[in-house]
Amino acid sequence: MKYLTIDTTTKVTVVALAEDEKLVGEGFLHTTKTHSERIIPMLDQLLTAADWTLQELDMLGVVRGPGSFTGIRIGIATAQGLAQVLNLPLIAVVSLDALAWAGKGRMEDVVPILDARKNEWYTARYRWTPGEEMAECLTSPQAMPTDQWLEYLRGLERPICFVGDAVGKAKERIAEVLGRQGVILPEYVSLPRGAYAAQAVWQRWQQTREGEQVEPYYIRFSEAEVNWAKKQKALRSEGHE
Amino acid sequence: MKYLTIDTTTKVTVVALAEDEKLVGEGFLHTTKTHSERIIPMLDQLLTAADWTLQELDMLGVVRGPGSFTGIRIGIATAQGLAQVLNLPLIAVVSLDALAWAGKGRMEDVVPILDARKNEWYTARYRWTPGEEMAECLTSPQAMPTDQWLEYLRGLERPICFVGDAVGKAKERIAEVLGRQGVILPEYVSLPRGAYAAQAVWQRWQQTREGEQVEPYYIRFSEAEVNWAKKQKALRSEGHE
Repeated sequence: MKYLTIDTTTKVTVVALAEDEKLVGEGFLHTTKTHSERIIPMLDQLLTAADWTLQELDMLGVVRGPGSFTGIRIGIATAQGLAQVLNLPLIAVVSLDALAWAGKGRMEDVVPILDARKNEWYTARYRWTPGEEMAECLTSPQAMPTDQWLEYLRGLERPICFVGDAVGKAKERIAEVLGRQGVILPEYVSLPRGAYAAQAVWQRWQQTREGEQVEPYYIRFSEAEVNWAKKQKALRSEGHE
Repeated sequence: MKYLTIDTTTKVTVVALAEDEKLVGEGFLHTTKTHSERIIPMLDQLLTAADWTLQELDMLGVVRGPGSFTGIRIGIATAQGLAQVLNLPLIAVVSLDALAWAGKGRMEDVVPILDARKNEWYTARYRWTPGEEMAECLTSPQAMPTDQWLEYLRGLERPICFVGDAVGKAKERIAEVLGRQGVILPEYVSLPRGAYAAQAVWQRWQQTREGEQVEPYYIRFSEAEVNWAKKQKALRSEGHE
């Protein structure tokens, strides 16, 4: 089964072509260009390089968040557009679930951390049991104050492997709080990768065997929504006075 | 410092753009197309996607083997051609050294295995010491009979993390000989990657600070050379009779 997967939930633009569990091609771009400029040319180039056409695809996959609000919207809009035009089933996965695949074969406990601003991370805790096909999600995705989360992880008294786009900035703090209990993978494997997203999509496809109605997964309200809600509240209070 | 790195020493075609230690872009292709068809379009597309031009580059990197004889020749010829035209320093690294970067932050002992046919692997043994910037090569690159190498590794009585293009086929045999001592990383991280080659190139650049005359690193003679040598020997014996 041939499928294409995209992930634009962080600053990295990621595309992958895969056939069942085999990764056939991957593109990774970490520049200042916006996702909307990058994603379609990257897809097009990867298909050309692999000698695949859109018509050959059997499925599409997309990462639906949490992460950057704009990134999530661009990814889903692109994937939904392609799915509709090509009449293909669309499978959506959670960004943190995808990142957990960075830790396969390495560590038992993997904790993806994604920058959620305001000293918070989008995060979850996963465990790889040797011999198991996928990681178990032990703590469901949430937006957590960074220090509160590190204290919680310290209390577990087990080695924790950190991955995700917040690792770079958080390195020193992780070392301070967790000492040798905190394991940091280098950025070139711990940022989102097409391979990880494709693995998560393939795993989900085997469970669902059909496309799904994809909803963005924000966890938190966006800044714009928060401001709008505040304004509405203020207007209502004024009206009542 | 901006540089481009290519690796065509296995069936995977790999290109990377990096700036110092930061991976900016990566292309990965694992199809039946030959390297000579893939490499230039892949380079061109990655540069375009990243908004980089060849003129902006400060250095070029290439993986010089061991691996596929044809792949090694194509990679070096391409890199040398570009280096000459663009007047850039060229840095060459060993495929096994590059693969050792797949294990950074995960395991202490990493053993890349590359298919050398005839029941042999191109292999070496590396150790990551926590806090060290690069892996130490404990056993230098060689072509080894697979079972002899596995027996040697078993005798070390420490966990060994296997990476490289021979892992897929060797999985069962590794488990038989090494049991839980053998750790297998999934194919999507254990095949050659632009990120690994770029890390190795950056590390070498910091040591040399200048370009080098690049020689292919075959370890073994190619089939063609062996046949030619046999033929020469036979001809000489005939002459002597």
